[in-house]
Amino acid sequence: MDERRKYQMVDVGDKAITRRRAVATGRIVLGPVAFGQVRDGTLPKGDALRLAEVAGIMAAKKCVDLIPLCHPLGLDQVLVSFVPDEAAQAVAVYCLAVTSAKTGVEMEALAGVNGALLTIWDLAKQVEPALEIDRVRLVLKEGGKSGRWVHPDGLDGVPESFHE
Amino acid sequence: MDERRKYQMVDVGDKAITRRRAVATGRIVLGPVAFGQVRDGTLPKGDALRLAEVAGIMAAKKCVDLIPLCHPLGLDQVLVSFVPDEAAQAVAVYCLAVTSAKTGVEMEALAGVNGALLTIWDLAKQVEPALEIDRVRLVLKEGGKSGRWVHPDGLDGVPESFHE
Amino acid sequence: MDERRKYQMVDVGDKAITRRRAVATGRIVLGPVAFGQVRDGTLPKGDALRLAEVAGIMAAKKCVDLIPLCHPLGLDQVLVSFVPDEAAQAVAVYCLAVTSAKTGVEMEALAGVNGALLTIWDLAKQVEPALEIDRVRLVLKEGGKSGRWVHPDGLDGVPESFHE
Amino acid sequence: MDERRKYQMVDVGDKAITRRRAVATGRIVLGPVAFGQVRDGTLPKGDALRLAEVAGIMAAKKCVDLIPLCHPLGLDQVLVSFVPDEAAQAVAVYCLAVTSAKTGVEMEALAGVNGALLTIWDLAKQVEPALEIDRVRLVLKEGGKSGRWVHPDGLDGVPESFHE
Amino acid sequence: MDERRKYQMVDVGDKAITRRRAVATGRIVLGPVAFGQVRDGTLPKGDALRLAEVAGIMAAKKCVDLIPLCHPLGLDQVLVSFVPDEAAQAVAVYCLAVTSAKTGVEMEALAGVNGALLTIWDLAKQVEPALEIDRVRLVLKEGGKSGRWVHPDGLDGVPESFHE
Amino acid sequence: MDERRKYQMVDVGDKAITRRRAVATGRIVLGPVAFGQVRDGTLPKGDALRLAEVAGIMAAKKCVDLIPLCHPLGLDQVLVSFVPDEAAQAVAVYCLAVTSAKTGVEMEALAGVNGALLTIWDLAKQVEPALEIDRVRLVLKEGGKSGRWVHPDGLDGVPESFHE
Repeated sequence: MDERRKYQMVDVGDKAITRRRAVATGRIVLGPVAFGQVRDGTLPKGDALRLAEVAGIMAAKKCVDLIPLCHPLGLDQVLVSFVPDEAAQAVAVYCLAVTSAKTGVEMEALAGVNGALLTIWDLAKQVEPALEIDRVRLVLKEGGKSGRWVHPDGLDGVPESFHE
Repeated sequence: MDERRKYQMVDVGDKAITRRRAVATGRIVLGPVAFGQVRDGTLPKGDALRLAEVAGIMAAKKCVDLIPLCHPLGLDQVLVSFVPDEAAQAVAVYCLAVTSAKTGVEMEALAGVNGALLTIWDLAKQVEPALEIDRVRLVLKEGGKSGRWVHPDGLDGVPESFHE
Repeated sequence: MDERRKYQMVDVGDKAITRRRAVATGRIVLGPVAFGQVRDGTLPKGDALRLAEVAGIMAAKKCVDLIPLCHPLGLDQVLVSFVPDEAAQAVAVYCLAVTSAKTGVEMEALAGVNGALLTIWDLAKQVEPALEIDRVRLVLKEGGKSGRWVHPDGLDGVPESFHE
Repeated sequence: MDERRKYQMVDVGDKAITRRRAVATGRIVLGPVAFGQVRDGTLPKGDALRLAEVAGIMAAKKCVDLIPLCHPLGLDQVLVSFVPDEAAQAVAVYCLAVTSAKTGVEMEALAGVNGALLTIWDLAKQVEPALEIDRVRLVLKEGGKSGRWVHPDGLDGVPESFHE
Repeated sequence: MDERRKYQMVDVGDKAITRRRAVATGRIVLGPVAFGQVRDGTLPKGDALRLAEVAGIMAAKKCVDLIPLCHPLGLDQVLVSFVPDEAAQAVAVYCLAVTSAKTGVEMEALAGVNGALLTIWDLAKQVEPALEIDRVRLVLKEGGKSGRWVHPDGLDGVPESFHE
Repeated sequence: MDERRKYQMVDVGDKAITRRRAVATGRIVLGPVAFGQVRDGTLPKGDALRLAEVAGIMAAKKCVDLIPLCHPLGLDQVLVSFVPDEAAQAVAVYCLAVTSAKTGVEMEALAGVNGALLTIWDLAKQVEPALEIDRVRLVLKEGGKSGRWVHPDGLDGVPESFHE
């Protein structure tokens, strides 16, 4: 009725099927006790990073259910990696998503990052309730008409294997 | 085989069924152009906050699928709210989750916040690719043996209706 | 931002856990050829009613994923039944949903009816593309503060076993 | 054991990947009070049409989970639109689904219509329990070997943008 | 952090899209009473094989949600079939899954077999609690670089229509 | 239409909410090479048992989606454990599921076992395609009117912590 505010899963029918990649990142600040236990895999509830790796891959696949206007599409590859940051008592998560499709996979990579971060939270919250997630970003996007885009802050810290 | 690293959905059988509430928050920094369009509901893809409100409520219900060790439980209430921050060109999201169960709903509230934030991202990314999510926190937790917990930074900014 | 238009999964925390029942119905008009084949279980793609019975029960369980503001809740019973209408070349579907919860199961019963009707459609569409679903109604609702409600047109045609 | 009644997700391996479109429709009869509130977005539970638009798009994506023999496939576009009918105190829903695949998207369009209609129901039922869904139809189907099919009653009332 | 133990949804981007088929099987040993009732469709809870056929097809579609590292992909065909074994008081299940994709469908066929077997279990357990599933195997795999693979024990017992 | 063959999610409304436990088991026969690599966590695709533990817990939660007539219910605890069998070059999986509900959790425990076994399969199949799952059984069931049931073969091999 109010066409101005209309939502849609936009038509990608005319776009080319190309290899499209996206890398997203995010960080969870854990505090001194939880950081050590997450890094060493010694939280009372188990090794959070091993679990978060699996949860992140599965969350990338569930992106289509979470984000209302996301297109359902196949995925060629999903990879989740962690980089501890001793100084900040934090762990950074990186998620790479790859598809051969008519639309990009930024949201899939971001969903993967969020699934992994929330899973670390779930295991660490018993030890430290005042956790914080920040620095959730898209760092790299490739493929399709708009080509390669890199976050203005560059690829510092992104695992080599994610650069292509 | 390695019992030390064992995961489990922990036994909550002996816990009391009590009313349990959790409020989580998070923020998306949008930059000048996207912020105005998100605030005014004038993004090319539609009103992001209206969509994010729905996506956040639905994401809270999907928490059990996303977080491997979360218990399936009923929910009494879910509420998602937005507070724009002109100075930071950002929007804060608050999600309240309530249950009458043997275990808390922090993860449900956090999943609601993340679902809402990613949905804003999905609509705003066309206008501004260098978005950023930060300040994802649990701000309030009530019910069960451990009672009421408030984030060390207090409840500043949390909508009145979420305090109880 | 616009509180007037706010959605929520409304708070049912103060409601009593009572036995709640709902019966919904709906009809698919099949035309002469498809009607006979649906009634006799001889559609080229198989017995549509046997499949629709299963799909209806499963759809009632998926209601919470389909309807944004529905509460997740346990179900005590789900039953799907069919009544052919020779004169109208149609099949009526009835779905009973029962719970012991703080909120009703009307939407679950309606989701069950729709899942069953769409499944009949999926098998019959090859034979008759101009199918039509109509008369989708709630016919009975029991339990909770508002007590028993029967559709103004009464319970004519509703299988005895659904009346309680 | 009884091969005559065998179900299957039929083999579409030999079919061509072509652009396939489907438009479905349906109507919810609301009665005088609920109709005005749905049309104006003033139901106590919020603006039903805005919510139903989102629920319809998401329901189209969930079709594969609801309809047992539906093929999983990618979607190029999903669009949901509403047309109020003052005389009948009803709202018509239209859903367009588009794919580039080996099989059609009629069921996806119909699932979108039903998801939208049930969501309107969920918000309006508090105001008027004797709601009714009717006139659920496929109105248009394009692509694949069988080409373009239009419902015998034509495209009257179907939004222009859905005709192609 | 421990790269040696890294999981991933492996990159299939460079693989060719080819027709890929997989046939899996499995058996449920029912004991004398349940066997007769499953074979004849006379279990108190209904015809287990008709229900298991549907559940198996739907489980093949849900494989991607169950198996963490499985790629989401489209399916061209899914077929589930049963062969009773009087001597062993058992029923064998066969599931054929077919795709046109960059990766195989063994796991989808196996998920279909397991979904069917567990559904038989669910209906038969009231009659015989000491049920047993065994002989779950991949029997045939075709397509892709590695070509056709047949289980060392051959295709004895596999329904003709699954051989291709 | 054919009432004799009717399915239903049976009415458990009159049953008592009691603590109910179920333990299921199953085995995957891996052959010499895959067995060693699964046991040692050195498969090319990663540590299969760590992944299978997570997949098993999540599969128990998805039981309600897989088994058509299963009741949706909350879970108090889920635990998955592995026991290698050098002589048979096999790994046994045990899954414990616990609920406080009106109906049992046998199917949840079995779904957990199957999810874990299929996940091991998915990682080991590259090394050994002729894998086999067998000895899938319910070993223990407690709670409700029928009380404690133990498989005729007893609890040999079941981890102590699952006995209660």
